[in-house]
Parts: sequence; C-alpha cells; structure tokens
Amino acid sequence: MRAKTPSESLTTLTDLVLPGETNYLDNLFGGELLARMDRACSIAARRHSRRIVVTASVNHVAFTKSTPVGSVVTIEAKVSRAFTSSMEVYVDVWIEDRQSGEKTKVNEGIYTFVAVDETGKPVPVPALKPETELEQKRFDGALRRKQLSLVLAGKMEPKDAEELKALFLS
Amino acid sequence: MRAKTPSESLTTLTDLVLPGETNYLDNLFGGELLARMDRACSIAARRHSRRIVVTASVNHVAFTKSTPVGSVVTIEAKVSRAFTSSMEVYVDVWIEDRQSGEKTKVNEGIYTFVAVDETGKPVPVPALKPETELEQKRFDGALRRKQLSLVLAGKMEPKDAEELKALFLS
Amino acid sequence: MRAKTPSESLTTLTDLVLPGETNYLDNLFGGELLARMDRACSIAARRHSRRIVVTASVNHVAFTKSTPVGSVVTIEAKVSRAFTSSMEVYVDVWIEDRQSGEKTKVNEGIYTFVAVDETGKPVPVPALKPETELEQKRFDGALRRKQLSLVLAGKMEPKDAEELKALFLS
Amino acid sequence: MRAKTPSESLTTLTDLVLPGETNYLDNLFGGELLARMDRACSIAARRHSRRIVVTASVNHVAFTKSTPVGSVVTIEAKVSRAFTSSMEVYVDVWIEDRQSGEKTKVNEGIYTFVAVDETGKPVPVPALKPETELEQKRFDGALRRKQLSLVLAGKMEPKDAEELKALFLS
Amino acid sequence: MRAKTPSESLTTLTDLVLPGETNYLDNLFGGELLARMDRACSIAARRHSRRIVVTASVNHVAFTKSTPVGSVVTIEAKVSRAFTSSMEVYVDVWIEDRQSGEKTKVNEGIYTFVAVDETGKPVPVPALKPETELEQKRFDGALRRKQLSLVLAGKMEPKDAEELKALFLS
Amino acid sequence: MRAKTPSESLTTLTDLVLPGETNYLDNLFGGELLARMDRACSIAARRHSRRIVVTASVNHVAFTKSTPVGSVVTIEAKVSRAFTSSMEVYVDVWIEDRQSGEKTKVNEGIYTFVAVDETGKPVPVPALKPETELEQKRFDGALRRKQLSLVLAGKMEPKDAEELKALFLS
Repeated sequence: MRAKTPSESLTTLTDLVLPGETNYLDNLFGGELLARMDRACSIAARRHSRRIVVTASVNHVAFTKSTPVGSVVTIEAKVSRAFTSSMEVYVDVWIEDRQSGEKTKVNEGIYTFVAVDETGKPVPVPALKPETELEQKRFDGALRRKQLSLVLAGKMEPKDAEELKALFLS
Repeated sequence: MRAKTPSESLTTLTDLVLPGETNYLDNLFGGELLARMDRACSIAARRHSRRIVVTASVNHVAFTKSTPVGSVVTIEAKVSRAFTSSMEVYVDVWIEDRQSGEKTKVNEGIYTFVAVDETGKPVPVPALKPETELEQKRFDGALRRKQLSLVLAGKMEPKDAEELKALFLS
Repeated sequence: MRAKTPSESLTTLTDLVLPGETNYLDNLFGGELLARMDRACSIAARRHSRRIVVTASVNHVAFTKSTPVGSVVTIEAKVSRAFTSSMEVYVDVWIEDRQSGEKTKVNEGIYTFVAVDETGKPVPVPALKPETELEQKRFDGALRRKQLSLVLAGKMEPKDAEELKALFLS
Repeated sequence: MRAKTPSESLTTLTDLVLPGETNYLDNLFGGELLARMDRACSIAARRHSRRIVVTASVNHVAFTKSTPVGSVVTIEAKVSRAFTSSMEVYVDVWIEDRQSGEKTKVNEGIYTFVAVDETGKPVPVPALKPETELEQKRFDGALRRKQLSLVLAGKMEPKDAEELKALFLS
Repeated sequence: MRAKTPSESLTTLTDLVLPGETNYLDNLFGGELLARMDRACSIAARRHSRRIVVTASVNHVAFTKSTPVGSVVTIEAKVSRAFTSSMEVYVDVWIEDRQSGEKTKVNEGIYTFVAVDETGKPVPVPALKPETELEQKRFDGALRRKQLSLVLAGKMEPKDAEELKALFLS
Repeated sequence: MRAKTPSESLTTLTDLVLPGETNYLDNLFGGELLARMDRACSIAARRHSRRIVVTASVNHVAFTKSTPVGSVVTIEAKVSRAFTSSMEVYVDVWIEDRQSGEKTKVNEGIYTFVAVDETGKPVPVPALKPETELEQKRFDGALRRKQLSLVLAGKMEPKDAEELKALFLS
C-alpha cells in the first residue's frame, strides 16, 4: 500500500451550536462536542484507510475554552500516525468571533481508530508520511502515546516502554 | 469541607441502545457513548462538589468491546480523586446479555471536571477518601495521570513529574 | 421458572435535563419524561423476564412537581407484579438539589409490559416475590389496577371485577 | 367564559415513523409515541384554554397494536371535559396502510393538563360542551376517571367516590 | 387509475416549537422547519400515489415571518398537480396566537416528489383533479414551475419552455 | 464596506449519515439533508456579512442522487451574490465512495439569507466579487433568480423582470 499524507485525510466539520446542545452556563455541552469530534476523526481514519473504522480509544481531549451557544465551530481532523491496523487521529477545534471573524482554539483531542473488515476483523492500513513540521512532531509523539495507552491499560510493563522511558530519563 | 467517599458520588445511568445511535456495523456509535459517559461523570462530579461543573479533559477512554443495538448499557461513574478545584472521575461501562443476564465490561474511561461558580470561576471542592481497594488504587494513580496530562499539554516538564518518573525508573 | 424479587429488576437511570428538552416554563417537557420512564421500565421488565418486552399500557403517571432545566433526574423502576406473560412496573422519579443534595419526589408512574418472542407472540414470565413492605403493598394493588384497566378498556364487566368491588364496598 | 366544543380544540399531528425511533422489533418505541401524544394533547388543552398548560397526569394509555417503521401515524387529540382549571384530553392514534390507505387504530390515551399563568399558578378554564355521541360518552366518564385518579393517588377515600361506587354497585 | 382530488392527500402536522430547535433570535431554525415541511409533503405525496416516494426537488420556500419558541405550528400539505410519476406538493405553514387563537401565515413552500417501487424505479401516479379556485390556480401554475425547474437545472432550453415564455411575452 | 470573494465565505460540513436519519429505502431523509444544507449556508452568509442572518427563502434544491446510510457527506456553501441586505448562497453536496474515494455530486441548492441586527432589522452587507468562472456564472444568474423569486411570490410583474425576459426572448 502507498503511504499517504495527513492532508489526504483532512476532514472539516463546520457547524453551529444550537440551544438544545448547551449546558447550564449556555456553552456547548462537553459530551456533544466529544461526539462531533469522534465523527470527524472517524471520517479522517476512513479516508486514510478506505475501510470501515471503529473507535478504539480516546487518548486525550483538553477543553481549554468554552464554546458559547450560537458559535460557529470548526473541527479539523487528520491522521497523525498509522500503525499496523490502527490509526492515531489529531483533532483541533476552533470557534470564530462573529463580528471580527477571528478564530480561537477551544479544544484539541487525540483519538485512535482500528480499520476492520465487514466481520469486524482488523485489516492493515497504509503508512503515514508527514509533510509539515507540526505533522512531523505529532507523528514522532504518537509511538510514545501508544506505549502510554498500553501501560495505562495494563497491557505493557512500564520498563518495556522504551520511548516513554527516554522522555523521563533525558 | 468534609472529605467525601467515592460512593457518595456514585452515578448509575442505565439505558437502551436504540437503532438511531448505531454505526455501520449496528453497534453503538463511539461518539454517542462518549457523550453519555460525559453526562454520567458530570453528575458524579456535581454530587461530590455540590457545584456547577464543566468538563476539563478526557484523560483516557478505551473501547474494549462493541455494544450491539438493543443492548442494555449500564454506566457507573464515581469521583476517583479530588484536587483543589478539579476532580478526576472514573467511569465503567457494562452491557448485559438479555437471556443470561451476564454482564460484560465494554468500556472504561477517565474524565476530569472543574467546579465553578455562576461566573465560571474555579471554586474549591471537598477531598476524596477512598474506601475499597479498587478506589484506593485509582486514587493513587490519579496524581500520576494528572502529571501525564500536564506533560502532554506542554504545561509541565517531564523531569518535574516526580510521580511519573518513579513509574519508569523503578 | 424461579420466582424473582423486585430488586432483581431494579433499574436506575440518572441523567441531566438539557435545555433542548424543556417547555415554555423552562421545566422538563412532560412527554420527554414519559419517554425516559418508559425506557427505564422496559429495562426492568426485560431484567425480570429475560425476554423481549413491549409496552402494553401506561396505567397511571402523576406529575406532582415540575423538573427545572439543569436538574439531575433519577428514575428508578422495579417490577411490582407478574401475571402470565405481562408485568406491572412501578417507577419513581426524583430530582436532587444541587447545593444541599436533598432529594424531592417529582413523579410516579405505573406501566405494563408484555414479554414476547422474536415473532411478537406472548411468552410466560417468572412470578414476583415482594420483599419490602412497599413492594408488598404495590403487589397487592396490582390485581385491582389490572381489573380497572380491563374495565376501562371495556374488556371486563364492572360486576366481575371482584378486587375492585371490594374496595368500594368495604 | 364561553363554553367551548371539543372540535374547537381538535389537534391533528400526522408524521412518519423514522428508523431512529424504533425498538428491537422495528416498531415505534412506546416512549416516543407517549411523547408525541403528550405534545398533541398539550396543544389541544392550550387551544381550549388559551393559556400555558402543563401535564398533570397520564390517566391511561393502551397500546393495542404495534406501529412498524415507515408508517404514517395520525394522532388526534380533543379536550373531553373541563374542570375548574384542569382539562381531560382524549387522544386516538391511527396508522394507515400505504397501499390500501385503510386506517387501523393502534393506540388510545387519556391525559390531564392544568392551565397556569406565567408564574405556574392554576387559572380557570372554559367549560366543555360535547356535541357528538362519543364526545358525550367521554364527557360522562371523565368525572369517574377523575375520582379514580384521586383514589389511586391516595387523595380521596374510595367511599367518597360517588360516581365510581355507582359503577360497581349497579 | 382514478384521478384524485387535493383534499384526498391533505396532511396536517401540528406541533410545538421546543427550545432545542431555535436559533440565536429564539425563533424556529429555518432548517428544522424545512425538514418538517418535507415530512408533511412526503406523506401527502404518498397518500396521493399509495407508493414509496422520494424528494426530487424543493422548488421554492419563502420564509415570510419568524416562528418564536413556544409557538403552535400547523403545516398543511396537499398535492397540487400530478405528472407521469412526479407530484408537485404545496405546503402552507401557520402559527396561532396563544391568547387570541388568531392564525398567521409564516411560510409557504413547493416540493416535488417521485413515486418509486421497492427498487427505486419511478412508477406512474393518478392524475389530480383540482376542486377549489386556489387548487385550480396552483394546478395551472405547476407546469410553468416544472419548466422553470428544468431550465434552472439546464435540462430544457428557455426557448422550448412554452408556458414560461407566455408569461413574459404577454 | 470592502467587497469580499466567495472563498472568504466557503463553509465545509463533512459528516456521516447515521441510521437514525434515513428513510424507507435506507437513504438519507430529504428533510434532514435540507436542514444540514441550511446550517452550512447560514454559516457562509454569516461569514460574508459578519452579522446575524435568517433564512429568507430556499430558491431551488435538486436531489439528483440518493445518499445511502453510512455515506460520508460533504456540503460546501459559498455566497454567490450579495444584494443590499440579502445574500444568495450556493451549496453543493457530494458523497464519496469508501473504497475508491471517488466523489459523486448528489445535490445542489440555492438559499437566500438576510442579515439583521439584534432586533431583527435588515442591515447592509458587503458586495461580492466573484473570482472563478463558475463563481462568475452563478453571480450573473443571481439577479435573474431574484426576479423569478419576486415574480413567483407575486411581488413583481413578469413584464418588469428585465433580466428574466431577456432569457426567453433571446
């Protein structure tokens, strides 16, 4: 399989925050945003693999700013690294000021998807070839995050997580 | 403020998987489950703090098994550790077999919430006093996970994350 | 089939009232609450029977207090009596004060479900063996309510409703 | 206030059953139908009273036939009797065969609403003047049903429910 | 096939505007109203043809007044002309004042549907026989609108649109 | 106000078709797609005007191909012409084949929005300066479509619609 670039899987989901999706402070409910991010990431993983994909894990999502009702929310997802049959997907979320048009980053997340066939069995996916500096940086961090995920899930001993250990020993 | 036990914040959300919430393989859509987990966790954090709470981050969610349409899904959330104004919440998800009634764990997640006042400003929350062995284990791991989250967000240097370093140097 | 206790079918559905589910007075819409209660009751009936269940009737639902937006709503459903293939399910609804944690009963309902096979044909269900005083009281009233339901539906003559007649003649 | 006829409050809600609203047997979910019936009844109560109305109770709903996905469902609600500030509303539900156009009754329900002012305080409503034979029959039964509701809620002694007693003593 | 009258396909969808369906100005969101109108029109087309129907085009929808949250919205759809296998459907939308009961027209639209068999292949539909003056007027304009639609879609040369040309040359 | 280009208002909404949004033939329901298109167009109009915008009319939407459940749907909206306070927005809809990635156009629509202030009063918007050939063509056709819309709404005499007449007389 030909390696693919992150921009080949770029997925943009621009939508409004309607009053029915907000919490007590009139901001977009966290859970609703997680669901939209998951849908954008799953499309990016599907575009990279051209396969059915299922969510394997959410590695990290940070809510840095709240998203008020009436906002235009732009979600951008791109595959950041591909392993045998799994893909790490990075997703960035912005809102824009209605009057100035200025964009503010409100949220960033990392999801992992697995490509499967019609019976749910994992299948191989193309490699990822980063192009920009940011894409390279996210690619480099992905192995470390994968080991972390395995350690947290009790599927790997900390002492075997070479990439991670290096981080703390340097 | 009096310290509280995890069982004081226990929140149970039992519900069905309806056909409108499923993906291509007729399983519960990942994003929809993330949203339900977020709602259960936010109630647990609110019960612990008796305050308005907002989602600060999703630290980790692992989808170990799929959840077929028609399943009864039980989500149980409990605060696992409290910091100054933030709370880590652990959430476990089970489905049960209709005929045998047997329960299967399908999913586990860790969310962080911040308690705020009516203007959105952080306010202090009670400490957490674990009771069971599992609660103690999750309590102990929470500081490590908090450091991890700060390292991943670029807000802490790996060399300053004492708890984390111990894990990899032992 | 072994008789079962009400606590074996206990189903708890704790969830938030979001702004999209409210009426003109910013309280939870009656119809939305009826739908949530129906889902909780159907899970209780399924846990008792280990079968597919369908709603046969709503016998009575009383809305005693309103449920404001932002409330945490707890719905608890338990089978209150089992007949040949139908089950009466009692459901209680509480909201809790965010600051004091105090619980207030807002609603109570009685639903009837029928257990069916994959073709929709009724199948027998286990008997119910009440344990607490309240469970016994609800069990005792169930036959009277069943006769009432049949009388209202024109399927039984008032003079044949022995349990009911006793109530008014005593 | 001028008395009104049932036809002045007639409310028709015709809609489709979409796949996202169905249960395991591909029929309309009971709870979803209850919610739609509640909305239709609340509009009928509002048309009769020209006031804000809130659901007070569901007195009886019988699900006689199931409603398959893709059906056209017609819900017709009319006020059946008015008391001081409460109104009983009767609602009938039909589906129609796509090819023959033949209508089948699937469901029938009785809801009670209370008219309130902007602060939620009950306000008086016009009397109801039935016109057809069926409207008269439903009007006559309403007082009996109201007593039943009060007896079931423990707010009236069976021996004081004159209308009801007559039913069983005759 | 026997020709049918518009009143044979009359479809009424009366429902409330809930807070979750509104925009920044607390009025019913345009897109939500378009979806409801489409459902009402599709039922009218199905009642005329007794077939599965799919939306072919929206010819024109004018939003003349806004629809505030809490409104009772009445949508009335009727087939306005039938061609070989397609049907033009006219839909009118009113809201009513809660206190006076007065109706205000807020919206009017024209949709086109095609009747298909189970494989999606177009099938013939009955002719339409208008009865009232308004039905006749809408019937007469339908051919002109069909030509317009074809011209706009680039499927007909303006010079061949006889009905349309007459309009501008008269 | 500085004139703007269509690409400054370009809005992309990529999302999945979930099973709960489909019709009898397992394709995306027409009304649901109309609602999504309306949301994308309203964001484009808002980006062009930097104002609150409300839907004024749907001028034409053609459903050329059906959109099966599980599809990735990409909606692209751009302002095609600006008048005093109204904007015409063109929207194109594609689905892509999961395995080949090939894109197919399924739908095309034209919506009109009006920019308003906080009280709902119309306010002026910037002019539009088309760049590409397609943008110029759509810009040129917009005046003709506006006249058409006015003629259909009975607000302009056909004989005064100069642009339209030219089309049929040439």
